[in-house]
Amino acid sequence: MSLIYFASDNYAGIHPEILNAIEKANQGYATAYGDDEQTKTAIGKFREQFGDDIDVFFVFNGTAANVTSLIAMNNSYQAVICADSAHIQMDECGAPEKFCGGKLLLVPTNDGKLTPENVVKHIYRIGDQHHVQPGVISISQTTEYGTVYTPKEVRALANFAHEHQMYLHMDGARICNAAAALNVSLSTVTKESGVDVLSFGGTKNGLMIGEAVVFFNRSLAKNFLFIRKQSMQLASKMRFISAQFSALLSNNLWHRNAAHANAMATLLAEKIADIPHIKITQAVQANAIFAKMPRELINQLYEKFFFYIWNENTNEVRIMTSFNTKESDVNAFANAIRSTKFHD
Amino acid sequence: MSLIYFASDNYAGIHPEILNAIEKANQGYATAYGDDEQTKTAIGKFREQFGDDIDVFFVFNGTAANVTSLIAMNNSYQAVICADSAHIQMDECGAPEKFCGGKLLLVPTNDGKLTPENVVKHIYRIGDQHHVQPGVISISQTTEYGTVYTPKEVRALANFAHEHQMYLHMDGARICNAAAALNVSLSTVTKESGVDVLSFGGTKNGLMIGEAVVFFNRSLAKNFLFIRKQSMQLASKMRFISAQFSALLSNNLWHRNAAHANAMATLLAEKIADIPHIKITQAVQANAIFAKMPRELINQLYEKFFFYIWNENTNEVRIMTSFNTKESDVNAFANAIRSTKFHD
Amino acid sequence: MSLIYFASDNYAGIHPEILNAIEKANQGYATAYGDDEQTKTAIGKFREQFGDDIDVFFVFNGTAANVTSLIAMNNSYQAVICADSAHIQMDECGAPEKFCGGKLLLVPTNDGKLTPENVVKHIYRIGDQHHVQPGVISISQTTEYGTVYTPKEVRALANFAHEHQMYLHMDGARICNAAAALNVSLSTVTKESGVDVLSFGGTKNGLMIGEAVVFFNRSLAKNFLFIRKQSMQLASKMRFISAQFSALLSNNLWHRNAAHANAMATLLAEKIADIPHIKITQAVQANAIFAKMPRELINQLYEKFFFYIWNENTNEVRIMTSFNTKESDVNAFANAIRSTKFHD
Amino acid sequence: MSLIYFASDNYAGIHPEILNAIEKANQGYATAYGDDEQTKTAIGKFREQFGDDIDVFFVFNGTAANVTSLIAMNNSYQAVICADSAHIQMDECGAPEKFCGGKLLLVPTNDGKLTPENVVKHIYRIGDQHHVQPGVISISQTTEYGTVYTPKEVRALANFAHEHQMYLHMDGARICNAAAALNVSLSTVTKESGVDVLSFGGTKNGLMIGEAVVFFNRSLAKNFLFIRKQSMQLASKMRFISAQFSALLSNNLWHRNAAHANAMATLLAEKIADIPHIKITQAVQANAIFAKMPRELINQLYEKFFFYIWNENTNEVRIMTSFNTKESDVNAFANAIRSTKFHD
Repeated sequence: MSLIYFASDNYAGIHPEILNAIEKANQGYATAYGDDEQTKTAIGKFREQFGDDIDVFFVFNGTAANVTSLIAMNNSYQAVICADSAHIQMDECGAPEKFCGGKLLLVPTNDGKLTPENVVKHIYRIGDQHHVQPGVISISQTTEYGTVYTPKEVRALANFAHEHQMYLHMDGARICNAAAALNVSLSTVTKESGVDVLSFGGTKNGLMIGEAVVFFNRSLAKNFLFIRKQSMQLASKMRFISAQFSALLSNNLWHRNAAHANAMATLLAEKIADIPHIKITQAVQANAIFAKMPRELINQLYEKFFFYIWNENTNEVRIMTSFNTKESDVNAFANAIRSTKFHD
Repeated sequence: MSLIYFASDNYAGIHPEILNAIEKANQGYATAYGDDEQTKTAIGKFREQFGDDIDVFFVFNGTAANVTSLIAMNNSYQAVICADSAHIQMDECGAPEKFCGGKLLLVPTNDGKLTPENVVKHIYRIGDQHHVQPGVISISQTTEYGTVYTPKEVRALANFAHEHQMYLHMDGARICNAAAALNVSLSTVTKESGVDVLSFGGTKNGLMIGEAVVFFNRSLAKNFLFIRKQSMQLASKMRFISAQFSALLSNNLWHRNAAHANAMATLLAEKIADIPHIKITQAVQANAIFAKMPRELINQLYEKFFFYIWNENTNEVRIMTSFNTKESDVNAFANAIRSTKFHD
Repeated sequence: MSLIYFASDNYAGIHPEILNAIEKANQGYATAYGDDEQTKTAIGKFREQFGDDIDVFFVFNGTAANVTSLIAMNNSYQAVICADSAHIQMDECGAPEKFCGGKLLLVPTNDGKLTPENVVKHIYRIGDQHHVQPGVISISQTTEYGTVYTPKEVRALANFAHEHQMYLHMDGARICNAAAALNVSLSTVTKESGVDVLSFGGTKNGLMIGEAVVFFNRSLAKNFLFIRKQSMQLASKMRFISAQFSALLSNNLWHRNAAHANAMATLLAEKIADIPHIKITQAVQANAIFAKMPRELINQLYEKFFFYIWNENTNEVRIMTSFNTKESDVNAFANAIRSTKFHD
Repeated sequence: MSLIYFASDNYAGIHPEILNAIEKANQGYATAYGDDEQTKTAIGKFREQFGDDIDVFFVFNGTAANVTSLIAMNNSYQAVICADSAHIQMDECGAPEKFCGGKLLLVPTNDGKLTPENVVKHIYRIGDQHHVQPGVISISQTTEYGTVYTPKEVRALANFAHEHQMYLHMDGARICNAAAALNVSLSTVTKESGVDVLSFGGTKNGLMIGEAVVFFNRSLAKNFLFIRKQSMQLASKMRFISAQFSALLSNNLWHRNAAHANAMATLLAEKIADIPHIKITQAVQANAIFAKMPRELINQLYEKFFFYIWNENTNEVRIMTSFNTKESDVNAFANAIRSTKFHD
């Protein structure tokens, strides 16, 4: 019997409208490396969302979107301030350090969110040649704990960054989920809130392969063509990445996919919130639920469902929904959590 | 009117059997990052070609296949010997130097081919701490000039490399074209000829996105999972790269595509060989033709056809065919070359 | 009036016996880059201390000794576990990240000392390609807080490291102070306690310029000649670094210098320990005193003495003695601390 | 019997006036890391030579002076154009590639000298994201063949570089020899000829340890404090490097030393020029002689003299003089070359 997956939004496949766009793009020849019509169209779609005064570049995956952004924003003797749970710290195998040449300065948090107050401790020894100099604040939207920054919170960090001669980077692997959760436009919580460079996630919201680096601060984009190529992120048949993004940004697909994923998480959270042996540990604001549950229950659930144990010591799990999570699967999972017998 | 393209094999789209494989792979959930059934199947397909004693990893593009191979094979104080026309030298924007940390030692050639005789000049100052130490010989198969190494030529280089404590890397962006041209198996001209690590090209032979790094010397693969991830080359929805490779290595598709491209180049070369104002400059052994022609002719042809001027000074052009080059397009191009009026 | 310095042991000059050795080495010609008699002699002096089964290389400064050691010990996708106060984290401007390509995993401590218990939290996700893999534990001896690891404590960390397939690196910028404080040989608390590679500090103990990288695990030294050269650390007139080390390791100079510095710190600590408005915050085990004192007192003292404010928020200062700290200066400083009037 | 050395100018020791300056600087305490009086004085001495509108930083060795200069001048996707004989290509074990992250573009030359005419071939594919972009021209003064650029030749390269949005770097490991040979000021052939950044050599002209990076284009120096520190080139007891430079730039010592070395080479060349079996292969313009001589003669000479075989195949040797080459040694060497019996 095949499992029902609540492991990660990249366990999902390709959304049909995205796949359809790939098929449609497969007509005849197209100039390689981005100088094609599909790519022009896709960039236009981004400008519909964010305005004309932006630059957009496509790369292969989220680690690359983050790392190439940071290369464009920082010198090697500078540092990036981020949450200690950030993807760039925990899940990129040291790529930021190797390719940017710099250091990450970590901020412990409960909810994955930076604030001017918890960041400020890293603003010291400025100008001291012995110490890395903070150059970028990087935040994840949604955070690795499924929480969401409000536009006001992003703006506070942007102002703080700019007042201290730093830039603000947003790892938006799940930016669509965040905007849908906030019920605002993609621009409201990014460009209009002061973000300088955005890693715009596609794969987790229905694409096959593809992420975008979006520069709101265009001076930082000046040499990005070379940075992308040298970083091994230039697709030859780029039209097929572009076409996916065009589809995602057409007919509100980005929002439909993200809102559905969010709704499924909310539904599941509501259904299990009152179960005594379940403790939801983070605000459920987008498409993730963090919860503690007895290990024996986890083991029983694993017979039919898959999800990640986030913390082996505390039995905290991460449950994640996606654009194609079915309501019936949520109900089945909620029922299983409620009714499964286990030994304490 | 849309142009007919002889620019590069990556101007072609996705082969229908490949696209079909992507669609078929889009069923339900699959574990991310390569721990899925499609990827297991694809690795099995490679083992059918090369034997069980290999390791295979998928990456996004050719530059990445080359650079991650070289990271696995060399230390930063070591050097890579390659032709001065090699893709790693001319077309990767310094990625090998930045990410491997080493130097390329160049060999001038007329036909893009290394030999023990033209490589040996870089074997000196061995053990001298001031000088980079050659650690890898890297050859392109087919070469950047469309020429093809015979198994015997590869073996000679492999023996030379191994006798001098070096490894042999093959940039096989067009390895299928080479094997088809030689009418040998993929293994004959790679593993069985002594290659240690192969960059196996997919995109130029009909894939949408995807290249493979194939380790015949498995000791070099030991840490490659980490190298790939740190090099920003780990696809989350890897099943869709894997499925493409499975299709390419099924029903002889790799050979059909490559042989067709090669045949189209041969056909075109035959049709234009006797034209007085055309001088074919390289042996046409695979899917590329290099030829000198009057600039005025080039300009006229550009109204209906696109191809690259390889050398602005000598008016040498590169004409490239692909899996979906039509015989009628070849004929039209040949006729145009023969009959176009131009001023000398 | 010139200040009396308790700022750092590298504010001191060159010990007369060291300077004399430089002068003596300045006879005629000598082969450059380390292939000279003086260097042979110096390596012999290290072997007198540590046994014949070691390799020794000289570099220019402490950052370089640490970074080149770590390059030799780790791959770029591996991480170094260290105290959050470690010099490699706080004072090397990101050199470890840039040149090793990896990540530092930090351990918060009160006294600068790692233990198997506080290190173990970083031993997880082993084999997970997304996460940096711990490869080295790096400890500072003496620590940045002037505390000293006992041989037993070093051995515990070495065993822990080796059990987890890691190496143990010691940043011994003040290794002589540590050995003198413990009243053991240099070998006892390094090689005999399981250290794999030692950054052996010279400059802070009386040299003009010079540090050594000492490999007890000689397999790690195999390519170090190339690592040193590529890291821009190969001195052409190396005999003058070597001669300094020969002098330091002759006539017990290393011990005399270090023991004197330690004694001066102990003396000062004893003299100020009972002053009510002084709180010594770390065990005074070598040549540093950490203490909190009223800011107004600090400001008054600054008219005649210089030392560092370690923490601007808590008014904790670092007072450091060296081989040429005079007992009369210690007395003057102690008296000033005791008798200076200040406003609370 | 001890050999007479004509191997390299870094086989010589410390000039007595330099050693004396080290001794004099060894008075009491001084602030570490360059914030001391000796360093201020040394920078003043450089400004006496080059004017006030420069920035000067001291580093440990010549490789570091070159590499840190290039880091300050170039991005990683840019390239450095240099002679194929350049020290940065031949003798720095890949440090430029590893630490700048870029590529060297080589120019074959007979005499080690670049010209706009032989450099221009690398000015192509400008703006092409696939190809490294030339950002710096780097020349060696004197060249690795002992030849000297005139101010006019340097100016031509500077103009060419600046017209093509590149910078001009000079590896001046032997800049004093060049200026003395040309009988011009240090500034004439560097700053006043359009050089942007100069690696100013100290060690080969009488220092114990020490090189300087001199920025004539001060905008490039903006972040150099951090670059130097991150590159492991910040000396803690910097006063002792500074004092050496102050001595070198006082009482015309730089010129006396260099002129003497040059004169000794000229003398030797004159004495051997007419010997039939000797063929001097490069113009003797500074302190090096390149000459072909029978291998059997070389072997005989090696009993009393040491010098380098530059090319094992052609029996070309490099003979190098220094500030402390004695006229009597030159005479002895010339006589030996003339009178030694050897079998052809």
